[in-house]
Amino acid sequence: MTFEASLQHARVLVEDDLARRLAASTDIPPRLLQAMQEAVLGGGKRFRPFLVLQSAGLFGVDDATALTVAASLEAIHCYSLVHDDLPAMDNDAMRRGRPTVWKAYDEWTAILAGDALLTIAFQWLAEPNSGLSPAVANRMVAELARAAGPAGMVGGQMIDLEANKRDEPARPTLLHIKRLQELKTGALIRFACRTGPLLGGSSAGDIDALTIYGEALGLAFQISDDLLDATGNAAEVGKAVAKDEAAGKATLVSLRGLAGARAVLAETQARARNALKPYGARAAALLDAVDFMGQRKS
Amino acid sequence: MTFEASLQHARVLVEDDLARRLAASTDIPPRLLQAMQEAVLGGGKRFRPFLVLQSAGLFGVDDATALTVAASLEAIHCYSLVHDDLPAMDNDAMRRGRPTVWKAYDEWTAILAGDALLTIAFQWLAEPNSGLSPAVANRMVAELARAAGPAGMVGGQMIDLEANKRDEPARPTLLHIKRLQELKTGALIRFACRTGPLLGGSSAGDIDALTIYGEALGLAFQISDDLLDATGNAAEVGKAVAKDEAAGKATLVSLRGLAGARAVLAETQARARNALKPYGARAAALLDAVDFMGQRKS
Repeated sequence: MTFEASLQHARVLVEDDLARRLAASTDIPPRLLQAMQEAVLGGGKRFRPFLVLQSAGLFGVDDATALTVAASLEAIHCYSLVHDDLPAMDNDAMRRGRPTVWKAYDEWTAILAGDALLTIAFQWLAEPNSGLSPAVANRMVAELARAAGPAGMVGGQMIDLEANKRDEPARPTLLHIKRLQELKTGALIRFACRTGPLLGGSSAGDIDALTIYGEALGLAFQISDDLLDATGNAAEVGKAVAKDEAAGKATLVSLRGLAGARAVLAETQARARNALKPYGARAAALLDAVDFMGQRKS
Repeated sequence: MTFEASLQHARVLVEDDLARRLAASTDIPPRLLQAMQEAVLGGGKRFRPFLVLQSAGLFGVDDATALTVAASLEAIHCYSLVHDDLPAMDNDAMRRGRPTVWKAYDEWTAILAGDALLTIAFQWLAEPNSGLSPAVANRMVAELARAAGPAGMVGGQMIDLEANKRDEPARPTLLHIKRLQELKTGALIRFACRTGPLLGGSSAGDIDALTIYGEALGLAFQISDDLLDATGNAAEVGKAVAKDEAAGKATLVSLRGLAGARAVLAETQARARNALKPYGARAAALLDAVDFMGQRKS
């Protein structure tokens, strides 16, 4: 299967699953449910669900079990976008060619829809029909909460906004940029990659391998994002580009230049590929994801 | 022990526990951690933690175990206040005589501090050192997420804001007001009361009894709140009063009058007391909480 086909496979599965879960939630006030559906079903690559399903498949975990985790993780990713887009945060009116949730509804509906998605993600993991054993469900809740919370994604967003909202931005170091990336985008990608061996009850060695892979892939994803912003075409990318430079935002590209950033990307890709060596051709789709980071057009 | 002393006992325990948990979270960016501490340690009756500890005590569950649940529940209650106070929501600048989090920091910090507290609450319940078995922790996560989420507290806040933000508020029915209360404040109070038999592995009969108690107590709490707004003294209450009438907000008081609301309160108190009959004097503090709803000055 090509990488595009694997991504498409995951996208269809997780979108069906999310749509079904939300449509069944008839006890949610209608306007709130609609805003949650808009937030979750408004498109996107579904890259994190793809990683969950592929990591699970590598360790013999079936799609049905993995989908509970994939749907919860995607709900949390989508809540973070809804809150990030708010006027008080990044103030973005468009995402994926559509009005953002606060623009389509209003700010308070967007705040509540985000809160609702964050909360329901943990409900999906923990409720009796999750398909996960209590011990595994509990581990998923703990790891996802850590990855998404103040020492993870929310912490990264805080550091990012603190730098951007300052009148005279401090010149950040490479270490600062790396920490920001690890928290803001890295933590959820790392979580996604670790789910396979965790769900499959695999050895510490497998967990370590997928953790190294996930950390490298997350960094590669961020660098490729920065490169896309610096060199991409807005129509292809699907959102405004050259925003980082206009905002005076420090990225690996601004700090090391295009060639420097591409060199770090290549090193990072090599580290990710190396971590998957023990799994040979069975890890083909996860290896394709590494290659993709060097070729992104959107 | 008097009711005030029992409340005070719970307050000291949960505030120490929350302070200790947050102080130990050195991996959280400093400004975010400070805003979380401001949100959680800025006072309050700690009524929900009191209910958790008393319900737990009634079923032989020790304070240390109950405190994990009490701290998580209080973190979620506090996140909801931080988000409710935002300019796009209730636009409140003061709470408990102090500037609200968005006023003391800024809107984006308040949004992120709320998100962080909501997320970390589930982490505390699910992490290996929670003191709860995986099965019990999992049940707590599922029940708390349901109570706090879009079919619970967040849903109630949505219904409330939808009514208030309308230019010409529709005249709501008693049923509408009751549903709003059940979701917005009732769901977390119900959860708090159910934790004792759930943590203690008690019978379905015990769970039912504490559920009936919790639902009645939640309703009594809301009616007493409405009465306080209609008749209280701002200095004693610690916040502005007569806000409901000024906002044209429908409450049981506006729909049934003071005497009507007091009659429903008395019936509701009787239902709560009745549910605790099987436990006799051992439930004294939970019975005191019922009496308190008829005597609130703040």
